[in-house]
Amino acid sequence: MTNFEFQNPTKIVFGKEAEVSVGRETAAVSRNVLLHYGGSSAERSGLLDRVRSSLKKAGVAFTELGGVKPNPRVSLVREGIKICREKGIDCVLAVGGGSVIDSAKAIGVGVPYSGDVWDFYEYRAVPERMLAVGVVLTIPAAGSESSPSSVISNEELLLKRGLTNEVLRPRFAIMNPELTFSLPAYQTACGAADIMAHVMERYFTNTRNVELTDRLCEATLRTIISNVPAALRDGSDYAARAEIMWAGTVAHNDLLGTGREGDWGSHSIEHEISAIYDVAHGAGLAVVFPAWMRFVYKHDVARFVQFAQRVWGVEPDYFNPERTALEGIARLEAFFVSIGLPTRLSAMNVGTDRIPEMAAKCTGKGTGTTGNFVKLDEKAVREILTLAK
Amino acid sequence: MTNFEFQNPTKIVFGKEAEVSVGRETAAVSRNVLLHYGGSSAERSGLLDRVRSSLKKAGVAFTELGGVKPNPRVSLVREGIKICREKGIDCVLAVGGGSVIDSAKAIGVGVPYSGDVWDFYEYRAVPERMLAVGVVLTIPAAGSESSPSSVISNEELLLKRGLTNEVLRPRFAIMNPELTFSLPAYQTACGAADIMAHVMERYFTNTRNVELTDRLCEATLRTIISNVPAALRDGSDYAARAEIMWAGTVAHNDLLGTGREGDWGSHSIEHEISAIYDVAHGAGLAVVFPAWMRFVYKHDVARFVQFAQRVWGVEPDYFNPERTALEGIARLEAFFVSIGLPTRLSAMNVGTDRIPEMAAKCTGKGTGTTGNFVKLDEKAVREILTLAK
Repeated sequence: MTNFEFQNPTKIVFGKEAEVSVGRETAAVSRNVLLHYGGSSAERSGLLDRVRSSLKKAGVAFTELGGVKPNPRVSLVREGIKICREKGIDCVLAVGGGSVIDSAKAIGVGVPYSGDVWDFYEYRAVPERMLAVGVVLTIPAAGSESSPSSVISNEELLLKRGLTNEVLRPRFAIMNPELTFSLPAYQTACGAADIMAHVMERYFTNTRNVELTDRLCEATLRTIISNVPAALRDGSDYAARAEIMWAGTVAHNDLLGTGREGDWGSHSIEHEISAIYDVAHGAGLAVVFPAWMRFVYKHDVARFVQFAQRVWGVEPDYFNPERTALEGIARLEAFFVSIGLPTRLSAMNVGTDRIPEMAAKCTGKGTGTTGNFVKLDEKAVREILTLAK
Repeated sequence: MTNFEFQNPTKIVFGKEAEVSVGRETAAVSRNVLLHYGGSSAERSGLLDRVRSSLKKAGVAFTELGGVKPNPRVSLVREGIKICREKGIDCVLAVGGGSVIDSAKAIGVGVPYSGDVWDFYEYRAVPERMLAVGVVLTIPAAGSESSPSSVISNEELLLKRGLTNEVLRPRFAIMNPELTFSLPAYQTACGAADIMAHVMERYFTNTRNVELTDRLCEATLRTIISNVPAALRDGSDYAARAEIMWAGTVAHNDLLGTGREGDWGSHSIEHEISAIYDVAHGAGLAVVFPAWMRFVYKHDVARFVQFAQRVWGVEPDYFNPERTALEGIARLEAFFVSIGLPTRLSAMNVGTDRIPEMAAKCTGKGTGTTGNFVKLDEKAVREILTLAK
């Protein structure tokens, strides 16, 4: 176990009708907020009206900025920053999934910063503080509701970049699993892949003696594996939706990463795919992860055997650990297929022609590496993307 | 899963030499603190001198109050409150285990309260705020370093009472597993029983559909079960000590209790034993828990089968679930024995003569019940204590 610091101050309000508390929770933080959201679903479902009404009742003034798209754009973030500055707004309330929350966080760090917010995502500057950010979560996936991370796309540069800094933790997250009943099957599955990826990025580590966090990771993965099929069979299965939603938060608040080095190579490779092709992040991860695993598993067969046995219930072949390791990877891939996700680039209509470009971009124009479990250079990323073709 | 709120803002600083940061962490909170600790071990080991020196370097003034005993006394708490008021102290730094931390918390809620601090522990008043409390942890057991709980004994009334309130969460906890190398075997084992008990109090619930938290509980229990024997074989096994220490915090910061009702009957029964006999809390729990389990298991055999299989690796007898359930309980008891703990009252030199008194005291003079999984009246508590004799 490595030395670590851990602090996750986000207040979680979880359960049926949890969103009725949004006015109260927001008012405890601010009286002048930016209400930030995505497309039409939150409007159609009536959620936005319930939020507006709760804010009004609590005496919270708000300015609205909708239109956040998946793979949220820095251009909208800049617009949000401008509005907040003009109106003296000191809190961003995100109603939506990871894209909306990540956009809200970007606005929150951009407002008190004199330069351009994209600087943070290119690591040219480090955010020192963020406006208060509150969340009403509608999609369990990104874990952004209590994570210190934000991923933003720069549509001019075709870049998608992640920022992680402790100041990015939201103040509160309101989580009602009923709000996810209407999520389409594909989006539910993509969310599950994202949640699993957050755990697996932490699970595959070179750090030794990390039993507690290994087991917490396995617990979270098994919960997703057993509940996603139930949620796909019946979208209104509260128990299944609740398990997935809470697991999504636990997967990415970094408790599971305490005392261990994470990998994050698969995430960085996927970011290059979705920056160009605008595919769903979870789908991209379902494609990249099995290929990444087949490329790296020989680096630590024992860890992949543990993954196969404890997560997938594979009976180990003690005389052939590699076979057991590969069986675990095959089970993961079969699970993704079973919940309707692509596991090949071709299934997302992504060809092989831009593999060299993607491999270069996620390794600093080919000068560096990505990932930690195995440090992947440009050639390695090309091979992984080719395995995934 | 039930609706819940969860927020655990305690900052954890974990790892080798973590205590060098105590000055920095304390100074971020206060410049005038009460340095609170127990007996001679922290002095002998040099830890207290390192803490003093770190505080001085950081410009933090401190007044010392040592002498906290296991099952910490309200009389010392009152003394601490008096000192803090006289010297305008606004932060209590606890150096020690759960007893010291619980005493620090009691001082922290007592200072801003006009009445007597014992009121809180008799539920005659509810604390509205607590002075900042910081922790340098030396014993993994109580989980008090990030929990919202404090247990105090009233030596005049022979009462031991627990208080739980969100304001009781410490600001920071500094956790260096090396500081636990010198813990005697018996104290290590008692700590393990306490940690396991915190998980089991949450695990045995009537709430349905709690898969994630079930699995997180199991992960934490298995980690303790596999690491305590290693720590007993070699007290300086850093990996084992680190797993136990971090598991002790995770076991009781209430993440594992989110969305589910806890039981806490065994804790309340144990408090009556240690209030009278002054036995170690963990040892008392090792005695009470197996007896409690044998008394209640028929209430939900399936849950005990899950416990037997997932925690203890018992191969289920599908045709005889009760046998499987009992085997799990037997394994727990055998584990306690294997790490040197008593599992009978007689092994702690506690006779049966005061069983009626204890049963009455933990059920409100026999007018109420304790526990939730099965609500135990006075007679039930007497039977459990008799099973444990």
